[in-house]
Amino acid sequence: MAFNAFHPPLRTLMGPGPSDVPPRILEALGRPTIGHLDPKFIDLMDEVKALLQYVMQTENALTLPISAPGSAGMEACFVNLVEPGEKVIVCQNGVFGGRMKENAERCGADVLLLQDAWGSAVDPQQLEDALKANPDTKVVAFVHAETSTGAQSDARTLVELAHRHDCLTIVDAVTSLAGTPVMVDEWEIDALYSGSQKCLSCVPGIAPVSFGERALHKITNRVHKVQSWFLDMNLVMGYWGAGARRAYHHTAPVNAMYALHEALLMVREEGLENAWTRHRRNHEALKAGLEAMGLSFIVDEAHRLPQLNAVAIPAGVEDAAVRARLLKEHHLEIGAGLGDLAGKVWRIGLMGYSSRIENITQCLAALDGVLADMQAPVVHGVALPAAEKILAA
Amino acid sequence: MAFNAFHPPLRTLMGPGPSDVPPRILEALGRPTIGHLDPKFIDLMDEVKALLQYVMQTENALTLPISAPGSAGMEACFVNLVEPGEKVIVCQNGVFGGRMKENAERCGADVLLLQDAWGSAVDPQQLEDALKANPDTKVVAFVHAETSTGAQSDARTLVELAHRHDCLTIVDAVTSLAGTPVMVDEWEIDALYSGSQKCLSCVPGIAPVSFGERALHKITNRVHKVQSWFLDMNLVMGYWGAGARRAYHHTAPVNAMYALHEALLMVREEGLENAWTRHRRNHEALKAGLEAMGLSFIVDEAHRLPQLNAVAIPAGVEDAAVRARLLKEHHLEIGAGLGDLAGKVWRIGLMGYSSRIENITQCLAALDGVLADMQAPVVHGVALPAAEKILAA
Repeated sequence: MAFNAFHPPLRTLMGPGPSDVPPRILEALGRPTIGHLDPKFIDLMDEVKALLQYVMQTENALTLPISAPGSAGMEACFVNLVEPGEKVIVCQNGVFGGRMKENAERCGADVLLLQDAWGSAVDPQQLEDALKANPDTKVVAFVHAETSTGAQSDARTLVELAHRHDCLTIVDAVTSLAGTPVMVDEWEIDALYSGSQKCLSCVPGIAPVSFGERALHKITNRVHKVQSWFLDMNLVMGYWGAGARRAYHHTAPVNAMYALHEALLMVREEGLENAWTRHRRNHEALKAGLEAMGLSFIVDEAHRLPQLNAVAIPAGVEDAAVRARLLKEHHLEIGAGLGDLAGKVWRIGLMGYSSRIENITQCLAALDGVLADMQAPVVHGVALPAAEKILAA
Repeated sequence: MAFNAFHPPLRTLMGPGPSDVPPRILEALGRPTIGHLDPKFIDLMDEVKALLQYVMQTENALTLPISAPGSAGMEACFVNLVEPGEKVIVCQNGVFGGRMKENAERCGADVLLLQDAWGSAVDPQQLEDALKANPDTKVVAFVHAETSTGAQSDARTLVELAHRHDCLTIVDAVTSLAGTPVMVDEWEIDALYSGSQKCLSCVPGIAPVSFGERALHKITNRVHKVQSWFLDMNLVMGYWGAGARRAYHHTAPVNAMYALHEALLMVREEGLENAWTRHRRNHEALKAGLEAMGLSFIVDEAHRLPQLNAVAIPAGVEDAAVRARLLKEHHLEIGAGLGDLAGKVWRIGLMGYSSRIENITQCLAALDGVLADMQAPVVHGVALPAAEKILAA
């Protein structure tokens, strides 16, 4: 095997994440490494916490980035909030609800899985019925924005129902955070996790989490030790806690924190509301283009995530061949379907820095060209004008 | 709170890690992000695996980087290899043996802790006696290079003893890998974990691991599911497995993989043996300087790690004040004592890119200057000539 320096190709990332990382974040990432207990790094940690509180719209003191990918953020919520033998309701409407079930079971929970069709939002009525029928439920978990389908659920209502039945809530906001509103305090979410590589446009590998008062109370009053030492918030909070005295727990991924800090700064500079508006507006433009071509969305309009566009692959079109050509000829990545939707949908991400006009035009032009060349049953030459009309409005 | 871009100070990192990261690794880290399922990224993953096999001196197929810090690498070994109710012997001679015990207990193990004095190597006789007295033991775990004390244990002998009693072995090589010999195949280690930020001089946040045949057999034949979804090697190996078809598990920290690849390339270019020799030679120079000043090592010469030098703080010298002055005036980080050794020792790292002549002279000069100014009971003006004599030899 011959080894050489790795120079990645320049891609346009319009899959389900990672999204395009802006040059200034990459530049911050590559700054010189300092120690994870350096006073200057402690200052940085304080800023990262405060900026995360802003982005999550919370005053939760226990708001911090887990030093691992979003999947570990999910696991951090489950291992800290679920005790063996407890009943946990997981609402599943896509791949990530299924992963939640796996996590809860591995914590020794008795899991009740409520299923909704993939592409639908979580049904509050089904949750309410289940809560009434299972008054011993301790935790309700659901995905706010299903990355596998592009459907958004009504987190506020679901949390309210859970609280009415005295349950804690675990909410997956991996794909929603900074793309659509995620109001941790207003919606009274107990535990929330996200990822760095979606609408924050940071490099992948970090999972911001936030735990509210009720969650904190459970974490600090557990009967059984948290089964993960690495993710035990009782220990992690000693390192990320308030004040200058921090207890060593693990070595933080120092450079990734530089990048996350820069990514959060960018959201703050733009303003959360403006970021939401941009994601919405750009989605409308992409949607106009895709629909003009004759492509259709698998999620109904009311529950559609602007930052993750799942469209049905037209009959007779070979999924993998299209994506391979987009990548090879156009250096453009769009996402494949996951799980039950494999081969049936494309997932086109407009997340964070990827939610730009130039990405929309590139994507529509490339799709149009490749599908025309493959003689796919779509209308050609109309996508860009349709998108332009929205952008000009 | 006012937020600005974070520009880290330029430090010389001579603590217990992170060590100095060479510019070419930082540059690789900041290259444009691509997708974690991009064919080019899959190629990179294959190279990272092959390079890790070289650095660990193994042909184990299950050799890969965990997408989280060394602590998660430790946890990956325990959750995969320990089943609830099994007896596990943990040999402790410092902080990290204690962390191993915590991990094993959280996996439901019945832990037998064998303690050696901090600063000593693990005693093989004590292990042999314990194995004879506890024939139901399934796993033996120990730290090859104790980061908290700078002591190195005889991994080959300890593994041999464990195998004679039909036990699997978990070995912590966080601080040893690429600094002193770690021969996974020759020593027949079953499971080994390390960290990116020590002698590999990569940014912190990644934990290389390797599992041998016996370990793999246990992982794929477990009675209970691995309690961590994120660290379940049955799932992780589907993503990092052989061939071009990879199953999505989690989103790999793409840019950190660029950096790890570059760090491993650097080890390969230098050659492992040359890296070991460099660490040894530079240790001799630092040691000559420190001993000329009158400072003494807490680990006896036979078990001393060249890359982590734990020296006793002279009587009457205030630990924190010295480290604060080194950091503030000289931008030099050295490590504090951990656990039982807090306030009693300094840990001076010469790991990876930090193991350079310019770092040795800077460290000796700064220590000499600060200790002289504080009127500490050491000999001044002799450290540099003593070190120079070794370097010139």
